[in-house]
Amino acid sequence: MPDATPSTPAALPAALHDALAARFGAAFSTARAVCEQHGRDESPFDAAPPQGVVFCTSTADVADAVALCAAHAVPVIAYGAGSSLEGHLLAVHGGITLDLARMNQVLDIAAEDMLATVQAGVTRLQLNDELRHSGLFFPIDPGADATLGGMSATRASGTNAVRYGTMRDNVLALTVVLADGRVVRTGTRARKSSAGYDLTRLFVGSEGTLGIVTEVTVRLHPQPAAVAAAVCSFPDVAAAVDCTIALIQAAIPIARCELMDAHAVRAVNAHDHLGLPEQPLLLMEFHGSAAGVREQAQSVQALAAEHGGSDFAWADTPEERSRLWKARHHAYLSALQTRPGCRCVTTDACVPISRLAESINATVAEADASGLPYFIVGHVGDGNFHVGYLIDPTQPAERELAEALNAQLVRRALALGGTCSGEHGVGLHKQQFLREEAGDDAIELMRAIKQALDPLQILNPGKIFV
Amino acid sequence: MPDATPSTPAALPAALHDALAARFGAAFSTARAVCEQHGRDESPFDAAPPQGVVFCTSTADVADAVALCAAHAVPVIAYGAGSSLEGHLLAVHGGITLDLARMNQVLDIAAEDMLATVQAGVTRLQLNDELRHSGLFFPIDPGADATLGGMSATRASGTNAVRYGTMRDNVLALTVVLADGRVVRTGTRARKSSAGYDLTRLFVGSEGTLGIVTEVTVRLHPQPAAVAAAVCSFPDVAAAVDCTIALIQAAIPIARCELMDAHAVRAVNAHDHLGLPEQPLLLMEFHGSAAGVREQAQSVQALAAEHGGSDFAWADTPEERSRLWKARHHAYLSALQTRPGCRCVTTDACVPISRLAESINATVAEADASGLPYFIVGHVGDGNFHVGYLIDPTQPAERELAEALNAQLVRRALALGGTCSGEHGVGLHKQQFLREEAGDDAIELMRAIKQALDPLQILNPGKIFV
Repeated sequence: MPDATPSTPAALPAALHDALAARFGAAFSTARAVCEQHGRDESPFDAAPPQGVVFCTSTADVADAVALCAAHAVPVIAYGAGSSLEGHLLAVHGGITLDLARMNQVLDIAAEDMLATVQAGVTRLQLNDELRHSGLFFPIDPGADATLGGMSATRASGTNAVRYGTMRDNVLALTVVLADGRVVRTGTRARKSSAGYDLTRLFVGSEGTLGIVTEVTVRLHPQPAAVAAAVCSFPDVAAAVDCTIALIQAAIPIARCELMDAHAVRAVNAHDHLGLPEQPLLLMEFHGSAAGVREQAQSVQALAAEHGGSDFAWADTPEERSRLWKARHHAYLSALQTRPGCRCVTTDACVPISRLAESINATVAEADASGLPYFIVGHVGDGNFHVGYLIDPTQPAERELAEALNAQLVRRALALGGTCSGEHGVGLHKQQFLREEAGDDAIELMRAIKQALDPLQILNPGKIFV
Repeated sequence: MPDATPSTPAALPAALHDALAARFGAAFSTARAVCEQHGRDESPFDAAPPQGVVFCTSTADVADAVALCAAHAVPVIAYGAGSSLEGHLLAVHGGITLDLARMNQVLDIAAEDMLATVQAGVTRLQLNDELRHSGLFFPIDPGADATLGGMSATRASGTNAVRYGTMRDNVLALTVVLADGRVVRTGTRARKSSAGYDLTRLFVGSEGTLGIVTEVTVRLHPQPAAVAAAVCSFPDVAAAVDCTIALIQAAIPIARCELMDAHAVRAVNAHDHLGLPEQPLLLMEFHGSAAGVREQAQSVQALAAEHGGSDFAWADTPEERSRLWKARHHAYLSALQTRPGCRCVTTDACVPISRLAESINATVAEADASGLPYFIVGHVGDGNFHVGYLIDPTQPAERELAEALNAQLVRRALALGGTCSGEHGVGLHKQQFLREEAGDDAIELMRAIKQALDPLQILNPGKIFV
């Protein structure tokens, strides 16, 4: 597991400690428990706590904290919901973590322009709760109740991306604190623009290494007139994947198209008492007019039948749909519970849809042969899937085996024209894969941008590339 | 008109001349006629010819030409179809223009992944012609038959953007020659990725100032099962705009929604013999299933009637639709012919849809009061509209008046949360507006990126920011 070993940071400069304490009072903490809590995320990496945590409530707080850290060349890491899977939040070079969870104000809902502006610590569920009477919703759904700041930083996507795009497509503008504490606003409220470099897209996906996102303006979408969700079981993973390829190539505008293998189904059955057939399945959702939804569902049912799929089991009420999607979102935690004490090494490759079958079929064969417990879930409509290898963290050989399987899977994805990360980001985990994917010259280009924007290398150092 | 005055460049270094001649033979020209032809675009700026032109046929050609120019710190400008409206192609600091029109190979059509990869000189009509039997099409339509390289460089959009997005959304990957002649490939064939900085989006819209795009991978879209186009006339521009706002806020997935004012309609009637009522109109297109198209059209007809719109005049056959859209695309040239010898100063503001009415209504009042001949066309579904002020180039007062009107229009758009450029780019024309829109710190950030990627400042110098 490359680059996960934290360096031993120098002690926090006393002058910085005193300046942060003076500026932030009780909102600055160096308490061991607070630092340890902020030194981990959902990844299998060992914790690497920061040397202090500032609980920010405003862009000005973030700007001041960054400026103070810059004055002492001390690392700064932004922290939202702590749901990263790739070690983004670990203070591998020490420094100060800025906890943005208290920046949870929805600043503006402009229904007439289908936009919302929120502070970075607002979570996707919070935003959708605020939108519930507006006729609009925010579609990006990475499973975890992540913050919009964190989702911007990792270019998150999730179950709805096949229809509504990713954070790349749905972030319209950002407020960003730069490495020296200056604040820039990127983008406008206009739907499109050709005015200068696309700074918004530069910060989206930059994992806190180029600036710290403090406010996000996102596009909203109309709540569909009709929604229908269905489960369709298949004899094997290959059949479910072939059905997915067929429906995407038929350009059916499906809103969600999620694969769960039999291991994942077993895990969520045990955790959420769903009673689903313990076979591979597609969990699908259709959005549109009542007629449109019917049309889509009929087309997909016909395609599924051609691939050995079962009759659709419908979730007709919002409650039933919600129960299914909650179970889907619990898949990761449910799987962890199937092997007490385990950790999960998660893969995130994304391939062109035409290559999804060979990618997943080879992955299943390798995982079965490995003997490691595993499960597969996937946003297969996008060609993106996750294998979770459940490892015993006390057994280095298991971690090595999982990483070897991941490497094999990633290199196959790259050979098929895919990417090492569909949505989780690079973090600590995929630095070598990013280099293989992008090439040395592109990495050098990214580094030149990093150097130009963060000459002291204080913004989330050790991530994306070391 | 700011920054349009070319500097007098130093003579082309003899060593560079000889090296280019040796490498490119007859594909390198310093003939006056060739240079003059490459020193202008569709903008009203006076020509600024380069000192030589290289006709490139491959990425290797571009890489070698750039490397040679870099060795002598001589400017390099990429040239596609010459259809820029903002002076992008003018060699205001001299240098070598790389004509990419011969890079016109469609390299790959991957119908199964709905992707195409083309050389930068392929035009949108050429690509769609190659796609005609595939069931797919490339939707970005800026009017001119621009090259995909140029469209990438300006982040172009046009009539279909309201439904299909812009080049930002539809470019998946690029091959780019950097300022030192190195070649990078950005992006993969996967639909989404969270792997590292979004270099693709950094180059899209960078107007040739960060690198030269030589190959473009774009997303294709299924040809809709049904297409219907209709013209709806309105008593005044305000009514047409109010109808547009209503249909966008109703989330009707209209594929094209174009405004033409009475001046524009008169011009295209004269040029294309259309016989349209010489009133403001919306030219609309609906894509979908037969039932979906019917449903959309009925909804919009009802909304239009509420706003005083006429009964729709339908263009039912592909030929009739093509005739209408050709006329729309000829609006600019048709308008130029209404005042022989004139040039056109074009605006390009884009505002949030809720502010479109006040933006356009004030614009109309100011233009009427000015006494200058003008016309308005607009991709109003996106909040983007163009006023063309038809000026006599021998009358500096007219140019000044048009520029003053433009400045008023842009500053109003910025105050309304909009952008100075929806799709044409900054070029020579909007540098001050970009600064007002983005702010000094964001401009400094863009400059830092420029400096990092092009330390010799040889890539299209004098554009975006001086």
